[in-house]
Amino acid sequence: MSPADTEPRQDGPARGRPRSEAVEHAIIEAVMTLLEDGLPLAEISVERVARTAGVGKATIYRRWSGKEELFVDVLRAAEPPDPELPGTSMRDDLVVLLEALRRRGLAGRNSAILHHARAQMKSSPNLWAAYHNTVILPRRRLGLEVLRRGRENGELRTDVDIELLNDIVVGPLLVRTVLRPDADLPDDLAERVVDTLLQGLRPANG
Amino acid sequence: MSPADTEPRQDGPARGRPRSEAVEHAIIEAVMTLLEDGLPLAEISVERVARTAGVGKATIYRRWSGKEELFVDVLRAAEPPDPELPGTSMRDDLVVLLEALRRRGLAGRNSAILHHARAQMKSSPNLWAAYHNTVILPRRRLGLEVLRRGRENGELRTDVDIELLNDIVVGPLLVRTVLRPDADLPDDLAERVVDTLLQGLRPANG
Repeated sequence: MSPADTEPRQDGPARGRPRSEAVEHAIIEAVMTLLEDGLPLAEISVERVARTAGVGKATIYRRWSGKEELFVDVLRAAEPPDPELPGTSMRDDLVVLLEALRRRGLAGRNSAILHHARAQMKSSPNLWAAYHNTVILPRRRLGLEVLRRGRENGELRTDVDIELLNDIVVGPLLVRTVLRPDADLPDDLAERVVDTLLQGLRPANG
Repeated sequence: MSPADTEPRQDGPARGRPRSEAVEHAIIEAVMTLLEDGLPLAEISVERVARTAGVGKATIYRRWSGKEELFVDVLRAAEPPDPELPGTSMRDDLVVLLEALRRRGLAGRNSAILHHARAQMKSSPNLWAAYHNTVILPRRRLGLEVLRRGRENGELRTDVDIELLNDIVVGPLLVRTVLRPDADLPDDLAERVVDTLLQGLRPANG
């Protein structure tokens, strides 16, 4: 990353007032730089971020209510973007959702910043709650929504509750990404899990 | 728990030399008492355990190589015992294995000691590794073994690898017990998960 990326841009005719988006970007990049330098989240104050980004503390507080809210945006910026659902079938939507979980797992393994930020986040109840509410919960709602549509379309059995079906669908990916960080995450994992689940574990008859 | 339970027994004719099992019990109970008093694992030294149990440090080191090994035995003592597999079918064995995971989850919610000990264990890489090797790994091997037998008996499809099938089977229970500690753990959860997985998520045809 070039130094220019971490500084608020001062370009354009309206001198002295950088565009809001560029400032936000600079602030988020400042936190990432500090994390990259090995600073634990607990030691990264709003003041320190402001200094690193070359902005005033008020500039940060105008955009985020506090450190927690800012860090959640940093984690979101470092993570793969949320997937676009194809909407062609429940099966295809589920594959895309699980593929996003797989990529999220790979990102956590390949990015030292993301890995440390996530680990540290879990030791801060406030930060964890903010992350849970803004990142995990919407993703979970999306999964439940896909299953509900599948049930309406006749793609899904109707005798098991949607919450349990969701845990059955995301379970294997969460086990491999969150609980067993050394587990295999092959390219076709999402597809194999979804198709195995849809067909069932009994041998195919006929 | 009565005070007598936490002291090495001095009963029986052979005065002064309590039975080995009673001493082990007393030492494990001493750690539990300290955890119950709210001491973090990091602050519980072998010396402190010895003092609480009323034994010498050497008595502890004769039985455990160190603090980590002792704590793993404490965690095991506090957890529900490993299940006996009925062996009547893969389906029945899987239900028993998942029911053990469900009970383990319930125990972690209902026992403050267990809850704190597990949480603290995760922040000690040595302790976590010891726990993983002596508690989690054997359980995982047992699950893989049950699936292998099921595959040989024709109860399980043969076109998906056993490791992935195991993650599919344990996934929903691990999600509900480890990742979502507020999730429902109804009595019939193990049975519902296993039967849903065996049948598949597609609507039953015919």
